[in-house]
Amino acid sequence: MTFATTRLEAFSVGVMAIAITLLVLDLRVPEVRGGSLWSALAKQWPSYSAYAVSALVIGIIWVNHHTVFRPVKVVDRPVLFANLYLLVVVTVIPFTTRLLAAYLLQGYDGKIAAALYGVNMLAMSVGFSVLWLAVTREEASLLHEHVDPVAARAALKRFGLGLVVYSIAIGVAFISAVLALVLHGALAIYYAFDQLNS
Amino acid sequence: MTFATTRLEAFSVGVMAIAITLLVLDLRVPEVRGGSLWSALAKQWPSYSAYAVSALVIGIIWVNHHTVFRPVKVVDRPVLFANLYLLVVVTVIPFTTRLLAAYLLQGYDGKIAAALYGVNMLAMSVGFSVLWLAVTREEASLLHEHVDPVAARAALKRFGLGLVVYSIAIGVAFISAVLALVLHGALAIYYAFDQLNS
Amino acid sequence: MTFATTRLEAFSVGVMAIAITLLVLDLRVPEVRGGSLWSALAKQWPSYSAYAVSALVIGIIWVNHHTVFRPVKVVDRPVLFANLYLLVVVTVIPFTTRLLAAYLLQGYDGKIAAALYGVNMLAMSVGFSVLWLAVTREEASLLHEHVDPVAARAALKRFGLGLVVYSIAIGVAFISAVLALVLHGALAIYYAFDQLNS
Amino acid sequence: MTFATTRLEAFSVGVMAIAITLLVLDLRVPEVRGGSLWSALAKQWPSYSAYAVSALVIGIIWVNHHTVFRPVKVVDRPVLFANLYLLVVVTVIPFTTRLLAAYLLQGYDGKIAAALYGVNMLAMSVGFSVLWLAVTREEASLLHEHVDPVAARAALKRFGLGLVVYSIAIGVAFISAVLALVLHGALAIYYAFDQLNS
Repeated sequence: MTFATTRLEAFSVGVMAIAITLLVLDLRVPEVRGGSLWSALAKQWPSYSAYAVSALVIGIIWVNHHTVFRPVKVVDRPVLFANLYLLVVVTVIPFTTRLLAAYLLQGYDGKIAAALYGVNMLAMSVGFSVLWLAVTREEASLLHEHVDPVAARAALKRFGLGLVVYSIAIGVAFISAVLALVLHGALAIYYAFDQLNS
Repeated sequence: MTFATTRLEAFSVGVMAIAITLLVLDLRVPEVRGGSLWSALAKQWPSYSAYAVSALVIGIIWVNHHTVFRPVKVVDRPVLFANLYLLVVVTVIPFTTRLLAAYLLQGYDGKIAAALYGVNMLAMSVGFSVLWLAVTREEASLLHEHVDPVAARAALKRFGLGLVVYSIAIGVAFISAVLALVLHGALAIYYAFDQLNS
Repeated sequence: MTFATTRLEAFSVGVMAIAITLLVLDLRVPEVRGGSLWSALAKQWPSYSAYAVSALVIGIIWVNHHTVFRPVKVVDRPVLFANLYLLVVVTVIPFTTRLLAAYLLQGYDGKIAAALYGVNMLAMSVGFSVLWLAVTREEASLLHEHVDPVAARAALKRFGLGLVVYSIAIGVAFISAVLALVLHGALAIYYAFDQLNS
Repeated sequence: MTFATTRLEAFSVGVMAIAITLLVLDLRVPEVRGGSLWSALAKQWPSYSAYAVSALVIGIIWVNHHTVFRPVKVVDRPVLFANLYLLVVVTVIPFTTRLLAAYLLQGYDGKIAAALYGVNMLAMSVGFSVLWLAVTREEASLLHEHVDPVAARAALKRFGLGLVVYSIAIGVAFISAVLALVLHGALAIYYAFDQLNS
């Protein structure tokens, strides 16, 4: 059975738009105790940092997602369920984001939270790799425009690189949670600029 | 009065995308008491299990929903309201999911929660059966491509099977809430693979 | 300046889909004290009743909204802002619903909550009347298919009837909050069947 | 790499529809202490005022956003990321709105909250200016219908005016938080009428 890509994109875009907007529910109004609202807000910097990184990450996922499906007109069920897996991973991002924001400065627990954030990113990277394999595999080749095999392999290599990089980020989490968050932010900015130039 | 299927799908896809994403709001950041974040997270396994099963269920509902409407170009009001009933049932899933997650390990109350989760699934199954009957009934036959009567009856039988299976799951809930959750997960995986092969 | 109806519908459908799904966030997991989960859930019937009525109301708003815009290809700014007013009224429904659910059985406060729920419905009815006037006014007549003036007046009369009926419902709220909720439910069911036959 | 505008609009409309609907989650059911529900609700006027202003603001953003992209068929990556920046700013509006509602009457903290609300609006205005520059820059000129350079400069001037006006609103916040909220409301109404006439 096949499925129009437009329907798949409508659902996917909906999930990603909601996930990026739900992130803001975890920006809580702080209670002011002693100092002013400035200092109360300043103490929430882990929330704002985690928010900013995750919003950028979901934005880039959205751009990548469209890039994957642009040449595709019709999808079959393996692609459908690979996509569903990726979407579930995206819906989990607001959870790992609020976990990281809550525990970032809590010593060992912060490292656990940062590692789980990295696992979420790794799972996303796996999702893109599997999705790309499902879309470009031979049995699906009649379903869309010709994808240049060289470009397809290059794209797969890029997705594969994500697997390595996010695995490293999980390791970095056990050195320092803040460093891991900085690394995720740097990776997101790198991917954004990388795509700007491609 | 008739109604373009595209409008019906836009609303339906929106509701399903939001429902699957709202599930994550019930993955709460745990408070660490005594042990580490690992153990605090591990204690939340009922939330994660219920989340995973419900996310898969809503994903499969989305696939099924599109399958029902694929041959349909225009819908009439009975179809419209059958669809509205199904959507309301879908929006209730995040509620029964968080109920199940909260009470899974609470003895008799867990059995009640699991039974209500099963009732939600049964109501969904009823929704699909009614929707299918509304779409394929004779008066609506001019509104869409010819649906092979043999295939239509086979599909109805499949939806009808859901009625039986989810009724059994309600019964299983009163034996063990965890067993009922495992059964719902197994059913979702079965339906996913079943659709992969069709 | 003009605006494609498809864009207006995309935004409107998004808002309505989110509003109907957000309703479920106010179905809270009850705390069991003394009795079983059954009795704890049973005590929440005001939440479930208010939820059911509001979900049906938003569903009917969605059907009506599409009916209003079906003959329209392009909208101008008065229509755009009339529509925006209607959407804001729709987004407020989850608030008045949770207010009604929380205070339904609280004597005079329940009557206030039921009256405010009625005001929300009245504001929605005003929104549809204004929207219909904006869509069918002479200056907009070149923007869409010919609307039969007799049908247009009949539709306006229907929308106007809503103004009367919801005003009465506000009065009924001060007799009994529960009666007002029953009346809103009956009206929603009446409108659903009325549309089924038209 | 280029990107169809329809995909960009689908994601953007989704984010804006969700942001405007999420605002209502911060309209809380008040607890009645002493007086009636009337007085408890009346005390929440900062929430309702902030809600009304922000809902109108997001509505106008949506109208403006479509106006910017109407002549555009295809976008390139600079436009894509300028748009992503604008969307992230929009998702933050529910946060600064609830911050303003919570602290409006809290003396100096209210002024901070109002100033941050103004910063959010300023960031939105910057977003529209950058987006407009990205859309109308020479390298992107082949991607869409001819935009009259005079009209393009006039539009840029309008967006630039927003920069000035919202900067003033930030200053006004330090005189009076309530006055700043009134100013934001007046600006929103002005922009709405301004667009009604254009």
